Amino acid sequence: MAAFRLGLVNPNTTAEDTAAMADLARAALDPAAEVVALTATDGYPAIEGEVGHVAAAAAVVAFVRRHPDLDAWLIGCFDDPGLEAARELTVAPVVGIGEAAVLSAGLVARRFAVVTTLRRGVAAIEDGLRASGRMDRCAGVVALERGVREQHGADAQDAIVATAQAALDDLGADAIVLACGAMAANAAGVSERLGVPVCDGVAFGALLAHGLWRSGLRTTTHGAYGFPPELAPERVG
Amino acid sequence: MAAFRLGLVNPNTTAEDTAAMADLARAALDPAAEVVALTATDGYPAIEGEVGHVAAAAAVVAFVRRHPDLDAWLIGCFDDPGLEAARELTVAPVVGIGEAAVLSAGLVARRFAVVTTLRRGVAAIEDGLRASGRMDRCAGVVALERGVREQHGADAQDAIVATAQAALDDLGADAIVLACGAMAANAAGVSERLGVPVCDGVAFGALLAHGLWRSGLRTTTHGAYGFPPELAPERVG
Amino acid sequence: MAAFRLGLVNPNTTAEDTAAMADLARAALDPAAEVVALTATDGYPAIEGEVGHVAAAAAVVAFVRRHPDLDAWLIGCFDDPGLEAARELTVAPVVGIGEAAVLSAGLVARRFAVVTTLRRGVAAIEDGLRASGRMDRCAGVVALERGVREQHGADAQDAIVATAQAALDDLGADAIVLACGAMAANAAGVSERLGVPVCDGVAFGALLAHGLWRSGLRTTTHGAYGFPPELAPERVG
Amino acid sequence: MAAFRLGLVNPNTTAEDTAAMADLARAALDPAAEVVALTATDGYPAIEGEVGHVAAAAAVVAFVRRHPDLDAWLIGCFDDPGLEAARELTVAPVVGIGEAAVLSAGLVARRFAVVTTLRRGVAAIEDGLRASGRMDRCAGVVALERGVREQHGADAQDAIVATAQAALDDLGADAIVLACGAMAANAAGVSERLGVPVCDGVAFGALLAHGLWRSGLRTTTHGAYGFPPELAPERVG
Amino acid sequence: MAAFRLGLVNPNTTAEDTAAMADLARAALDPAAEVVALTATDGYPAIEGEVGHVAAAAAVVAFVRRHPDLDAWLIGCFDDPGLEAARELTVAPVVGIGEAAVLSAGLVARRFAVVTTLRRGVAAIEDGLRASGRMDRCAGVVALERGVREQHGADAQDAIVATAQAALDDLGADAIVLACGAMAANAAGVSERLGVPVCDGVAFGALLAHGLWRSGLRTTTHGAYGFPPELAPERVG
Amino acid sequence: MAAFRLGLVNPNTTAEDTAAMADLARAALDPAAEVVALTATDGYPAIEGEVGHVAAAAAVVAFVRRHPDLDAWLIGCFDDPGLEAARELTVAPVVGIGEAAVLSAGLVARRFAVVTTLRRGVAAIEDGLRASGRMDRCAGVVALERGVREQHGADAQDAIVATAQAALDDLGADAIVLACGAMAANAAGVSERLGVPVCDGVAFGALLAHGLWRSGLRTTTHGAYGFPPELAPERVG
Repeated sequence: MAAFRLGLVNPNTTAEDTAAMADLARAALDPAAEVVALTATDGYPAIEGEVGHVAAAAAVVAFVRRHPDLDAWLIGCFDDPGLEAARELTVAPVVGIGEAAVLSAGLVARRFAVVTTLRRGVAAIEDGLRASGRMDRCAGVVALERGVREQHGADAQDAIVATAQAALDDLGADAIVLACGAMAANAAGVSERLGVPVCDGVAFGALLAHGLWRSGLRTTTHGAYGFPPELAPERVG
Repeated sequence: MAAFRLGLVNPNTTAEDTAAMADLARAALDPAAEVVALTATDGYPAIEGEVGHVAAAAAVVAFVRRHPDLDAWLIGCFDDPGLEAARELTVAPVVGIGEAAVLSAGLVARRFAVVTTLRRGVAAIEDGLRASGRMDRCAGVVALERGVREQHGADAQDAIVATAQAALDDLGADAIVLACGAMAANAAGVSERLGVPVCDGVAFGALLAHGLWRSGLRTTTHGAYGFPPELAPERVG
Repeated sequence: MAAFRLGLVNPNTTAEDTAAMADLARAALDPAAEVVALTATDGYPAIEGEVGHVAAAAAVVAFVRRHPDLDAWLIGCFDDPGLEAARELTVAPVVGIGEAAVLSAGLVARRFAVVTTLRRGVAAIEDGLRASGRMDRCAGVVALERGVREQHGADAQDAIVATAQAALDDLGADAIVLACGAMAANAAGVSERLGVPVCDGVAFGALLAHGLWRSGLRTTTHGAYGFPPELAPERVG
Repeated sequence: MAAFRLGLVNPNTTAEDTAAMADLARAALDPAAEVVALTATDGYPAIEGEVGHVAAAAAVVAFVRRHPDLDAWLIGCFDDPGLEAARELTVAPVVGIGEAAVLSAGLVARRFAVVTTLRRGVAAIEDGLRASGRMDRCAGVVALERGVREQHGADAQDAIVATAQAALDDLGADAIVLACGAMAANAAGVSERLGVPVCDGVAFGALLAHGLWRSGLRTTTHGAYGFPPELAPERVG
Repeated sequence: MAAFRLGLVNPNTTAEDTAAMADLARAALDPAAEVVALTATDGYPAIEGEVGHVAAAAAVVAFVRRHPDLDAWLIGCFDDPGLEAARELTVAPVVGIGEAAVLSAGLVARRFAVVTTLRRGVAAIEDGLRASGRMDRCAGVVALERGVREQHGADAQDAIVATAQAALDDLGADAIVLACGAMAANAAGVSERLGVPVCDGVAFGALLAHGLWRSGLRTTTHGAYGFPPELAPERVG
Repeated sequence: MAAFRLGLVNPNTTAEDTAAMADLARAALDPAAEVVALTATDGYPAIEGEVGHVAAAAAVVAFVRRHPDLDAWLIGCFDDPGLEAARELTVAPVVGIGEAAVLSAGLVARRFAVVTTLRRGVAAIEDGLRASGRMDRCAGVVALERGVREQHGADAQDAIVATAQAALDDLGADAIVLACGAMAANAAGVSERLGVPVCDGVAFGALLAHGLWRSGLRTTTHGAYGFPPELAPERVG
């Protein structure tokens, strides 16, 4: 069997974020796998609201149309922008790091807390958890009040640890979800300090996309994920 | 008080749809009101899937940024693309015809059915009704299996009447929601033939946007609808 | 077209509340519109529990049966007593200030808090939000622990501002709903002091009822809102 | 211990219904118990809509205020009119036959169907099941399209059997709830013919009210069920 | 009619718990009734997690198969282990003290809080309330952080009173549910001290099981509660 | 890194089922991985009800306690018996084929239908989907009315295809979940004939368990999944 080729889209324009996520994905996958890392060229250096989400979704759609040859896709933004649209465009499995992180947390803990960047994003995360049916497992969504571009370095990790520890102590959480691709590099360190699972969805998301592909599952071409009428004859993958 | 100025965005590229919706909005509003009708220039002639939704949301964002002087906005696509993003960008009230149609149906009937174009869109409408908390009032979402561009003329109306009548008889619906801006011109005729309210969200949506504005309500600048960090100092309205 | 005539029922027996609500409704509607303001003659000076609700519903039913000639109705009590019964009795659209307030808050903010009078009423409001599918948008229901008859004057406004500010700061609310018709006169002042939308449902409710009527929507006569078998041939409007 | 005294309110004006329900309650309770059967004097001979519900609730409130000496109450209408108001008025436990029927069905079957009189009432029953958290156990609500006053005699029983059998066969129900006090006299016969439990809430409701009382439970005087501020010093029981 | 015979299973191995629960059940039921009290012989002295639940369910199944002659069953553990399995095995009504306690609380208060033993059990109780549709009535689940075997004596009662009082004051609860059979002996004392209903499900559960039986209701043999295919011809009761 | 070792528990006593599932798991995992396949020795040849579930859960608990050295676990029964208990006992990730199947279906289709063996099991599957928050994605649960032991051979596959095709055509499903480990061997054939994804949870479940382990996630030892108090010092893995 040919080696697995994963498209990893970073829908913000910050190449450092792409590189950090690609490193995590490559370390998780079999060495023979290939990770095609793609960074948005239009859009914003960080996605922190719905306007950014709209631009991010457009970037994801464009990349999926441009790369019909990949085996699976991972969208590297906790919002999962463009996820449903991408599934219309390809039979390759498409996974978002947001759903991957939440899903993994639900498999290793009965209750998790989500730690996000800004308070303004809390409601959107809550609504997303409700829409995906996972809100009942969530003990709370809490914000660092630090932006996406302030998630690197030791004091960023300290901030996550402090906020997450409070969620463990006060909200009844037993695991932590990090709600931002730029936090993923801190996940292992935070987990070691807290003694609970910390789920970022990047490494696990790459393995999840591979797992779908390896077990022969492809995105359905029936119904809502059928090729969009907007684009006539062009389904890829 | 200066006359009310409503921005009506049609996020598909079909100017006939824009004109038909603008006529309905103008007929509903006070004659002194102004309707600024805007048609997407990029994108697709009809929005029938998530790929189209991504493009439509981008068109809405662009128009709201370009017209900071309007009093309220109506998004003329049942999906309400770009609705949350638009609310980040302006203090003018923003309403979508989808939410307006569903909301009005809930005020005049205990159960409504949604009649949409293609079967592939049924799941997205169901998910939207759940997300907005209105699924319990919905007796069912049914499809004509006719596309957006086939919603004009007498046989389109006949098709709606037949499908809607079955929803009244078999599903327990007491009113009908039409899930497509292009169907709105048929709403009055369908209502007359069926003898129940038929809600399209265009005329009522224009009045709803006006009602928010007239009673002094403006989109909050606090929290999730605060100006997006992606765009530094530029909030309009 | 003949001028719009709105029936505004205050289902408590306090004429000052009726007058204050009628003023707000008249100021919001077109000057040519007529507001027929009606005050319950039996019942209680304030509705603060379910026993009061039972009496209030009876008052609403009696008024709607007595005035078959009005174009639309607004029920001026946050509980919306008698709302479903009124919809059986008339084809004129019927709106309650409770649903109008909550609905408007959901259009201008992603999360709102409800500020009510007494703690004993919190559970009923929560249950009502769940029944109408709007609980997910509600960041919390908080009580002033001041009765309906203590909602006037500057210190009442101060109390609302203090409680509402805490909801904005601590609960993640981005707008405020005032859960009592007697609070409506304070809404504009509270909004100005807090800098967020404050929704009372009186002015907006009048415009909402008008919007339904103006766009040609009438309460369905089909199904649950059909004329009640209890009353043989008498449907009004 | 003094003998148990149950107030059984029939909130419609049909004395035959009262007598039939009282017979069932007396047969179920210990012979030493007393059933005080009360028939509404105002209102309607049958409750088939929300207008009737408003009148029925008023009748329940009036009876509970007039009889402060009873040990527990059973409201003999599937809608449970006035239930919450009655709980404000007395510390005696108050049970409705609607909640009793549904609750018993949930204890003897994993899925039940509700058989009601008229189609117009289906939506209200569905909404009630959602509000009480029991909708997930309900396989469907189906209507005989026979009114409350047509529920007596052999052909009424035949109609219930036919409709209920279809619910068992097609909807996945394993027990039947009868949604009308006037159907209760047919419950035993229907159960025998269908071979599944048939729950009407009258006999079981009387025993449930007794069970609360006998185990020392009284309606709380704290919070929402505290004595209503509308009525100053008058709590009974 | 022959006297009612109730099987009361204590699925932990602590005979003192069985005796205390049997005393409460006997005091509640008619003196002619018989309570057959059964204590698990395998398993654990306390059920405090899912591993204990698995053993407890096996004990319940074994007892129900061994005693085909009883009229009804009460499972004496708040988790209700083996409840669904028991209902496959017998037509005698089967009730758990967990569902009985929660159900009674919902009949005497609009909001209740659950007081449990250990924090680790809170999530399971929340999930159980959601599964049974009663979470909306629950103001919160709070833990004493005292194990099942530390629920006796005056200081145990003091701990319950302190935790429950905080739930009444801070969470909006109007009644208390005790989430452990071993707490039941303290219920009356706690209720007296707090002035609100305290529901343990033992006495009331015995009366509830009797009420089902006395009104002629038997566990359905249709569908999910039919005799399990695993065990060929052996249904009891 | 040492090779991955997966414990695959078949909680029924049919060794052929174990072998078939182990083959699928081995084919999916890296050749260096080891699958330790375990068949229940007590219990039933098929799990078709709650009594069987109780025995199956006990088998899972026993195996997990007996094999503290494995890297992850897969429970090979669609009910996921003993899943929560197993997570108390080990830090190795534990996955059930039921949750794996449903989860994968939700990643490759917006709506799926579940095809199960017997009608009596439908309600339990529906309740499980609600408890895990995935019911909204489920278009329906349908039964073959063929038992677990009749799932082999060509006519079993024909039966699945016919039932699944009806779910695709009539219920709006876009993928199929097979609700029984014994059906898994037919999944690939069914998928090929229907042209949509068919999810059985065995191969994918093995990869999912590996993905958790490979990305460093372990079952939390905090809160509900902490080592059970019932078993003093013995946590494995």
